[in-house]
Amino acid sequence: MEKLVIIGAGFAGLRLARALKNKGLEIWLIDKNNYHQFPPLLYQVATSGIEPSSIAFPLRKIFQSKKNIHIRCGEVDGIDTESKTVNTSVGSIKYDYLVIATGATTNFFGNNLIEQHAMPMKSVSEALYVRNKILQNFENALISEDETRKALLNIVVVGGGPTGVEISGALAEMKKHILPKDYPEIDFKSMNIYLVEAGQKTLAAFSEKSSVKSKEYLEKLGVVVHTGTQVVSYDGTEAELSTGKKILTKNLIWAAGIKGNTLAGLPPTTIARGNRITVNRFNQVTGFDDVFAIGDIAFMTTDKYPNGHPQVATVANMQADTLSKNIMHLLEGKPMTPFEYKDRGSMATVGRGLAVVDLPFAKFQGFFAWLFWMFLHLMLILGVKNKLFVFVNWLWNYFTFDQSLRLIIKPSKKD
Amino acid sequence: MEKLVIIGAGFAGLRLARALKNKGLEIWLIDKNNYHQFPPLLYQVATSGIEPSSIAFPLRKIFQSKKNIHIRCGEVDGIDTESKTVNTSVGSIKYDYLVIATGATTNFFGNNLIEQHAMPMKSVSEALYVRNKILQNFENALISEDETRKALLNIVVVGGGPTGVEISGALAEMKKHILPKDYPEIDFKSMNIYLVEAGQKTLAAFSEKSSVKSKEYLEKLGVVVHTGTQVVSYDGTEAELSTGKKILTKNLIWAAGIKGNTLAGLPPTTIARGNRITVNRFNQVTGFDDVFAIGDIAFMTTDKYPNGHPQVATVANMQADTLSKNIMHLLEGKPMTPFEYKDRGSMATVGRGLAVVDLPFAKFQGFFAWLFWMFLHLMLILGVKNKLFVFVNWLWNYFTFDQSLRLIIKPSKKD
Repeated sequence: MEKLVIIGAGFAGLRLARALKNKGLEIWLIDKNNYHQFPPLLYQVATSGIEPSSIAFPLRKIFQSKKNIHIRCGEVDGIDTESKTVNTSVGSIKYDYLVIATGATTNFFGNNLIEQHAMPMKSVSEALYVRNKILQNFENALISEDETRKALLNIVVVGGGPTGVEISGALAEMKKHILPKDYPEIDFKSMNIYLVEAGQKTLAAFSEKSSVKSKEYLEKLGVVVHTGTQVVSYDGTEAELSTGKKILTKNLIWAAGIKGNTLAGLPPTTIARGNRITVNRFNQVTGFDDVFAIGDIAFMTTDKYPNGHPQVATVANMQADTLSKNIMHLLEGKPMTPFEYKDRGSMATVGRGLAVVDLPFAKFQGFFAWLFWMFLHLMLILGVKNKLFVFVNWLWNYFTFDQSLRLIIKPSKKD
Repeated sequence: MEKLVIIGAGFAGLRLARALKNKGLEIWLIDKNNYHQFPPLLYQVATSGIEPSSIAFPLRKIFQSKKNIHIRCGEVDGIDTESKTVNTSVGSIKYDYLVIATGATTNFFGNNLIEQHAMPMKSVSEALYVRNKILQNFENALISEDETRKALLNIVVVGGGPTGVEISGALAEMKKHILPKDYPEIDFKSMNIYLVEAGQKTLAAFSEKSSVKSKEYLEKLGVVVHTGTQVVSYDGTEAELSTGKKILTKNLIWAAGIKGNTLAGLPPTTIARGNRITVNRFNQVTGFDDVFAIGDIAFMTTDKYPNGHPQVATVANMQADTLSKNIMHLLEGKPMTPFEYKDRGSMATVGRGLAVVDLPFAKFQGFFAWLFWMFLHLMLILGVKNKLFVFVNWLWNYFTFDQSLRLIIKPSKKD
């Protein structure tokens, strides 16, 4: 049996493994977690709206009783393309074909001070950390005064892409509907939520109308939006903006950029900008026939995308689909098909009834866009029970104006 | 306004605060967590059956917008009955009346080695730790062999009370229905689940029939039950029993005893056995008019209960009810009513369709007992949404034979 090793069980890696699970291959799927996560809703975990388990799906459940699928939870130390081996914290694994689907992580652009104090939000664990930290800071605000209290309440979100827009909107709704009721002792007029974006607009990759609307929605919810502005420094208590403005805050969420999760063992020449791995139109890593990269980590240029494809779920899914067919073609000695991205559009939610949707054939904003956003995300979440739980949570939150999972669950002393 | 300080938001403390919230008192409710937890279902969190959030309810949500209720999340360092002050990690709080409702914690009976390596299960955090640890050990078993693999798979539960019986039953069902599908690479015949109980029977506090049935059910599910046996030593890899038998296991759950969470500042003479605080029939701590203790921490003797009351939720709830009335009587200068416990019975679930119920007027076992157990626990869980989510999870698990929350969610690197 030919042995296919897939590193990473995100959108790209998991979809590939599922497409090939009955094709007579021995598949090894390696991930550092024992679950697949659904990043588009991480911001709702961070703001107590939904449970981590609703957007995390156990990998073993997906491949139950499949003897040709070997799931391993561990960190990859590196790969050796000579001996065709992946070295991991759970042993060395040989491959005939290797697919790198390691995705991307938060990019602090070399600013160590910010990295040390800011909260990234690229995983379920990080989103839970944001939830615990912000809630704990509200508790601390109760027993603090003046400047200290202000710093504990204020929240700065850096990055005006979908993640930054969505979390600042959700936080603004929390400030409006929940916090004054939860903490009648605190005057929340002294709390501000800031969104800081280096470019000239929020949701810059969206249509002009959606971009404008997103800023309008945010401001309607009370978010202070600073475009054309960077956070130049942050020491854990005070953020300094490129405009000179200083903001007291103990809560700084960093959603301003990503970089690829590369691996030791690939020639340095294969690494493109953004720390991505250069691949050809068949997703083969430059210089290799048997090593592929798909999803956020892959850097493929085409006539339509001379600077690479956007690092979004739809590209990951489509590359997985194309590659699953190409791997079968390869095994059958048939020619492979070059990857071609069909843009399906993008969408983002700012708040209750406030969303923007850009489809290839239609662009719309507002309440209907919000319903559309919810419907589509429900469809995309893995598992019937997860869909149901997210749906019930959304309904509940909608009618009660309440994000009810405001729990600070600390790790046990043994952790 | 008279100032009532309640330490602990478990069954007793929370119920008291709710009963008195509209009675013109200034109430300070102190807990180390920002949520109330429902311990009877902790074992289902530990075995991936339900979500922690389903049995944890945010305290602030319960008292939303109540200006006379002050919730503080912090550790109590001690009390000063002279100056009528509670000293906490979130400041000092003065009281006119103090209610100690600190509950009980795991008792390792002075065995430090066991304490260091065993897993207690008295809180949501500890139950999550058990879940993560056991799942991680299965992952590690995949890449281990022989004795090491056996130790990673074996589970020893110490204590044959309801918690011990319920978790060993749930683990046995997991072994039967889930693990062989999740890990087709592992032969689970080499895995054993042991229940070790020092007394002569499981569920000793129940009726003879229920006690006998519980052991029968456990053995039917494949649990190896050792009664009349103690765990004398455990080094993290091997448990030694009082019979001389040695069991290789990396998973030892300790549910063999509890002791009261006492506070610094009370006279040593008030401390009774089991580290409980001696109270009179009005729950007043011996020697005090203005300091009360209720729930698991309180040691009250009556003619019917010369050795104190059982440390169970119903006693806690009833003491809270009586005390809420007595505090109002005290303020109004009326005489207080002595507490009288009415035993409402007990129940425990071993597995699917296997439960035992002892009511004052009827004792029954089996499928109907199981339905009754589920119905009653659903009623007792706080919050409509939590009831709904637990119910859906139970239905789901029943029909799919699946506990679907098998997630190892690690703390973020920043924790």
